[in-house]
Amino acid sequence: MQIIEIKTTEGKQSEILIGEDFRNIRNYLPVQNVIVIIDENIFDLYPLFAENFKCIKIHADEKNKTLETVEHIILQLTELQADRSTFIAGVGGGITCDIAGFAASIYMRGLRFGFVSTSLLSQADASVGGKNGVNFYGLKNMIGTFNQPEFVICDINMLDTLPQKEFRGGLSEIIKIALIKDAEMFDFIEDNTATILNRDKTILQKLITKSIQHKADIVGCDEFEKGKRRILNFGHTLAHAIEPNDDISHGFAVSIGMMFAAKVSEHFGFIANNIVERIERLLAQFDLPRCTNIDEKLLFNTIVADKKKNNDAINLVLLNGTGKTVEKNIKINDIEKLISIFCNTTKNSF
Amino acid sequence: MQIIEIKTTEGKQSEILIGEDFRNIRNYLPVQNVIVIIDENIFDLYPLFAENFKCIKIHADEKNKTLETVEHIILQLTELQADRSTFIAGVGGGITCDIAGFAASIYMRGLRFGFVSTSLLSQADASVGGKNGVNFYGLKNMIGTFNQPEFVICDINMLDTLPQKEFRGGLSEIIKIALIKDAEMFDFIEDNTATILNRDKTILQKLITKSIQHKADIVGCDEFEKGKRRILNFGHTLAHAIEPNDDISHGFAVSIGMMFAAKVSEHFGFIANNIVERIERLLAQFDLPRCTNIDEKLLFNTIVADKKKNNDAINLVLLNGTGKTVEKNIKINDIEKLISIFCNTTKNSF
Repeated sequence: MQIIEIKTTEGKQSEILIGEDFRNIRNYLPVQNVIVIIDENIFDLYPLFAENFKCIKIHADEKNKTLETVEHIILQLTELQADRSTFIAGVGGGITCDIAGFAASIYMRGLRFGFVSTSLLSQADASVGGKNGVNFYGLKNMIGTFNQPEFVICDINMLDTLPQKEFRGGLSEIIKIALIKDAEMFDFIEDNTATILNRDKTILQKLITKSIQHKADIVGCDEFEKGKRRILNFGHTLAHAIEPNDDISHGFAVSIGMMFAAKVSEHFGFIANNIVERIERLLAQFDLPRCTNIDEKLLFNTIVADKKKNNDAINLVLLNGTGKTVEKNIKINDIEKLISIFCNTTKNSF
Repeated sequence: MQIIEIKTTEGKQSEILIGEDFRNIRNYLPVQNVIVIIDENIFDLYPLFAENFKCIKIHADEKNKTLETVEHIILQLTELQADRSTFIAGVGGGITCDIAGFAASIYMRGLRFGFVSTSLLSQADASVGGKNGVNFYGLKNMIGTFNQPEFVICDINMLDTLPQKEFRGGLSEIIKIALIKDAEMFDFIEDNTATILNRDKTILQKLITKSIQHKADIVGCDEFEKGKRRILNFGHTLAHAIEPNDDISHGFAVSIGMMFAAKVSEHFGFIANNIVERIERLLAQFDLPRCTNIDEKLLFNTIVADKKKNNDAINLVLLNGTGKTVEKNIKINDIEKLISIFCNTTKNSF
């Protein structure tokens, strides 16, 4: 097991336990007053939770990541007579942890909470950084708070039960971290695609640990996303416009978004075409999508309504090589053109 | 003007500006991107806000202090294209500030915000301490966060337009602060009831400043209500059980709750009967209620569901003299008896 400690600017502490066995969860919980908020699939797959805890089951998909689900949880918390001494354990992938973390953060103005992170995406990315929240009228994560879980258990063995499509989606965020922070890690992924797809535990633990370390470095410097943390949004501007308009997972949307950001980086001369090609090849090897059929006008309108918008321009995180980023403030009108070029060229090229 | 600076354990800072003119609000706001969330009555009374800002009006009563109202605000924020650079100014009494503060705290995971506090209750009490939130299925403030506003303007002149009943309700929290922290202040209020009811500005500014200073001291030591801050709940255990079951203001409910807590304090021998009588007389002079007709069983059941409950006992803040408190952990069953005694004796005595 590897432990990464995250200290926030507010002095709170969060422990990410990579390779810990979820059956040791009791070691991280108070003796009593624990309520588990759990993805219904995980609830069925791992009976330990039902046998040991009061559970609130949720149907964890993007469409259900709403204030209504949070209300449903809060109602059940009141019925279970949860009080300020209650500890909330969120068990599931990124969506479950986002919802559970938000419910815990606003119930009685905040309960203690921790996560068992069960998907590759949430282990490598979503459970780190203290972001939580839900969507609102199709706008991604429009409502939420910044609040660190006390612990995140990342049990690599739990990835065995992960559907292949979800597993591939998780690789997308790992590639993202490599692209923005670690050229060697990107090379390593390129050199180990087959082993990764075979879910080799040693390699996965290494990649997850690297991803978390990089993210922890970034988040530790900038918990509230005022500066450096923005580089984590690489690929996410377009991804967040795709998600509400398509029945697609976050990881897949990020894959398309990274392709877009890579092409825009090339467009502005920050990277050469061979890097764009390497990214495209790697995504293809993991069978991750690199284009979208969504109407370009719809994509653009969704971006304008999205939260990364700051007045009449959008700050786009671009690549300045593998492992290096550059931010560029792009006028709304130019964004519209860039999306149009991307949609039209990729439709034909893939 | 007097300025009280509140530094929280998290390093955030909040300025309470007592006696500032609300027309100077621009001095505390960013140049652009301000959205005002305002009590509809204040909106009509003070045209400055409509003339200068985009406004979201709310109907600020306890029944409307719900997640639905927050959703309604968030929907309007998205329609007004509020983004992370938007500053929220909440303008109104305690309910408005509670709702506005919560909406600001969860929209895009938190916007900057400040308040113009327009009621005596919110000036002296509710806007200080960073608590925000809404009710949930009749349970008071069940959902919310701890988050300090950047500033709170307490314009004493705005109290001129406050309905008499609301003004009297505000006195209730001022009496509470005196009772738990400041015997001299309690004496001072006893000696100046007529001047206070005449809304003498000098006296009001003095009382508001004292109340805020005391509360700031308490909150500064214990932002998240883990210890010392609990004394602020004096009178609130019963008050929070009364409010969902009666069409009564918070201040009035606290008045009854303080009467209950005073009688329980006498019951356990912490204070003599003459102090109970002084409290009763003072509340009566301000025409504040000291008893309730709500069914005692209903009151008890609401308390059990309320958030101050910690397992099978309730921590009650009692008086140990004027200006001094003592906490007592009381078994649920005993609480039931104490409520019964209170309801039955006070029904006949007032």
